[in-house]
Amino acid sequence: MKVKISRKEHFNAAHRLFNPAWTDEQNRKVFGKCANPNYHGHNYEIIVSLTGIPDSETGYVYDMKELSDLMREHVTSKFDHKNLNLDIEHFKNLNPTAENIAMVIWNILRSKIDKSLELKITLYETERNFVEYPAN
Amino acid sequence: MKVKISRKEHFNAAHRLFNPAWTDEQNRKVFGKCANPNYHGHNYEIIVSLTGIPDSETGYVYDMKELSDLMREHVTSKFDHKNLNLDIEHFKNLNPTAENIAMVIWNILRSKIDKSLELKITLYETERNFVEYPAN
Amino acid sequence: MKVKISRKEHFNAAHRLFNPAWTDEQNRKVFGKCANPNYHGHNYEIIVSLTGIPDSETGYVYDMKELSDLMREHVTSKFDHKNLNLDIEHFKNLNPTAENIAMVIWNILRSKIDKSLELKITLYETERNFVEYPAN
Amino acid sequence: MKVKISRKEHFNAAHRLFNPAWTDEQNRKVFGKCANPNYHGHNYEIIVSLTGIPDSETGYVYDMKELSDLMREHVTSKFDHKNLNLDIEHFKNLNPTAENIAMVIWNILRSKIDKSLELKITLYETERNFVEYPAN
Amino acid sequence: MKVKISRKEHFNAAHRLFNPAWTDEQNRKVFGKCANPNYHGHNYEIIVSLTGIPDSETGYVYDMKELSDLMREHVTSKFDHKNLNLDIEHFKNLNPTAENIAMVIWNILRSKIDKSLELKITLYETERNFVEYPAN
Amino acid sequence: MKVKISRKEHFNAAHRLFNPAWTDEQNRKVFGKCANPNYHGHNYEIIVSLTGIPDSETGYVYDMKELSDLMREHVTSKFDHKNLNLDIEHFKNLNPTAENIAMVIWNILRSKIDKSLELKITLYETERNFVEYPAN
Repeated sequence: MKVKISRKEHFNAAHRLFNPAWTDEQNRKVFGKCANPNYHGHNYEIIVSLTGIPDSETGYVYDMKELSDLMREHVTSKFDHKNLNLDIEHFKNLNPTAENIAMVIWNILRSKIDKSLELKITLYETERNFVEYPAN
Repeated sequence: MKVKISRKEHFNAAHRLFNPAWTDEQNRKVFGKCANPNYHGHNYEIIVSLTGIPDSETGYVYDMKELSDLMREHVTSKFDHKNLNLDIEHFKNLNPTAENIAMVIWNILRSKIDKSLELKITLYETERNFVEYPAN
Repeated sequence: MKVKISRKEHFNAAHRLFNPAWTDEQNRKVFGKCANPNYHGHNYEIIVSLTGIPDSETGYVYDMKELSDLMREHVTSKFDHKNLNLDIEHFKNLNPTAENIAMVIWNILRSKIDKSLELKITLYETERNFVEYPAN
Repeated sequence: MKVKISRKEHFNAAHRLFNPAWTDEQNRKVFGKCANPNYHGHNYEIIVSLTGIPDSETGYVYDMKELSDLMREHVTSKFDHKNLNLDIEHFKNLNPTAENIAMVIWNILRSKIDKSLELKITLYETERNFVEYPAN
Repeated sequence: MKVKISRKEHFNAAHRLFNPAWTDEQNRKVFGKCANPNYHGHNYEIIVSLTGIPDSETGYVYDMKELSDLMREHVTSKFDHKNLNLDIEHFKNLNPTAENIAMVIWNILRSKIDKSLELKITLYETERNFVEYPAN
Repeated sequence: MKVKISRKEHFNAAHRLFNPAWTDEQNRKVFGKCANPNYHGHNYEIIVSLTGIPDSETGYVYDMKELSDLMREHVTSKFDHKNLNLDIEHFKNLNPTAENIAMVIWNILRSKIDKSLELKITLYETERNFVEYPAN
């Protein structure tokens, strides 16, 4: 049986939700106050989970310190204290919903981690709203 | 791959655990202090999770605001500050264990949400006791 | 300078708020859904804080284990899984608001703890509503 | 002895820290990544505390429901999903540091609450950074 | 469909990570500060989850009180306030990584719980580092 | 009126409680399982609070980033993943109770921070046991 290990980090960012193909009125109707043109923001919590077989010599599925460093280098140092819509290339043409942010982070990290390990992203936008990708 | 989104709400309620087919003594033996005839209570935390494919126009699996409204309309506004045994029809003949409360909430919400989305309920009775339905 | 030490415990109880000198209508107007005659309930968190000078031999202001035992013996074992209005003598003629529960607990514990130590009670009714007695 | 009661609410907002009298370089030097011209954001938690003597008829220092309504009407409905620098009049000429936000909220609420009650604001910018006004 | 129930307990323990087949230098290189020969420690949170069908008479998958007692008798009373490397037989020849601790606990409890119930262990070493066994 | 700002950091350490002037039996009697000669450990949370008047140009009582750096340089980098009794000079002849750890940290930081700012340390040994120094 495999073990799943998880590491939690955070970043604080501004964003707004909107579809550039829509009118302002449509955006307000669908995204409500999340469409505010002047942006709002969140303290995002990100959990990266890796599933695999512990190494017989270390007892680790993956070194948590290395996982933390990987998350900081490729995700949180780039997203922290930024405006996701304006400052992050991935969201130039992609609405920064929690769903899309989680999928972007998954794509960023997938190539950095050995394929033998399953990768999952959990993203808390607030303590009441969170998403997981992939779902299982 | 699908995304799972989750929304957390809460309600505060009284309840007692007992089986009306049993004697008081049997109830005390099985349910212990949870069988107190005068009831006790909890701050319940309820998480509703929906799994599906994000909409290409909104980037949403489901609008969190609409999910919150749905939970408030059909669950928390009805359960909050109530006695589950006495005030809630579903528990007139059903023991309000965490397991049963989660299944009742699942049944209430299942018909309100498109069948293409998988539905899961997580219910915290206390921060130390919680249940998930369905299990996976 | 003195040190303040704090210990957190919990109890789960039912209660309702009402003033027996008032009509049902008045009670509903003032206490809203908290006046539900069938009760509701909470997971109460109680923090007991003691302020004093650490003992030179132990480095303790007060043994946390002894404080925990004192709280369990005199408060949480008596309030847990109870109906505060019906089962607890102190609330037979006293409305079990968070303010009054905190003052009752302070009075219960004050005589059990040496007078050289300042005593303070913090009571969380929910994670959003809490009270402190005395205020400073 | 008086009782202190506290109510917690939240709002999610964007902001940036900068002093308009300074050069961009000075702002970056002092405020670091918090000076990002495109803004960043936070899930702010706000706790309003009132200290007074419980009313003999209700057992309340202040009705928590009314306090919550007051916070929503005058603070969180106005700050939530907004850009503090651009959308909130109070910060047109005031740097929205946690210290200043707490003082602004104190000033907004002070006139809405009876002077016999002491008012205190606690503001969490993140779970690691928070401020209290007044300090004691 | 089955229900998963979960109970959380805790224990506080010292440990160090190292592989006795390696030199001190190798251990320091791989395990970093976790290899400190004088040990460090954690407040471990352990969640035991059981998946099954609720009993028709009790509404329980498993009595949470009995599960708590089982965890205390076989795990937390034995691990709490101990040095995992020196005091716990299971880690005499096994590196006490979070992965290995979770697998040890699973093995201890598996024989104590009816085979019709699926068993899962979640172990928090810190609030930022946690593991699950089995992974799904 | 002054503002109090607070910054939270953490460190994970092993320790044991004992008085070298006492017999093993006396130590076991007073400190119970905390006296285990092989040590146990905790995830300590430390909050440093500074009270003062916000600077008119920055809106800061103290730069949170600088406070965090100060805490890491002088406290958490030195205490993290250490054995407090064996590895930290301050506890060579001082019992590392939560009270004493908080006072040691206060003394370490007091000389590093301008005297116009009041300094307070809050130390969580577990989420159920914590101390504050000075008390007010």
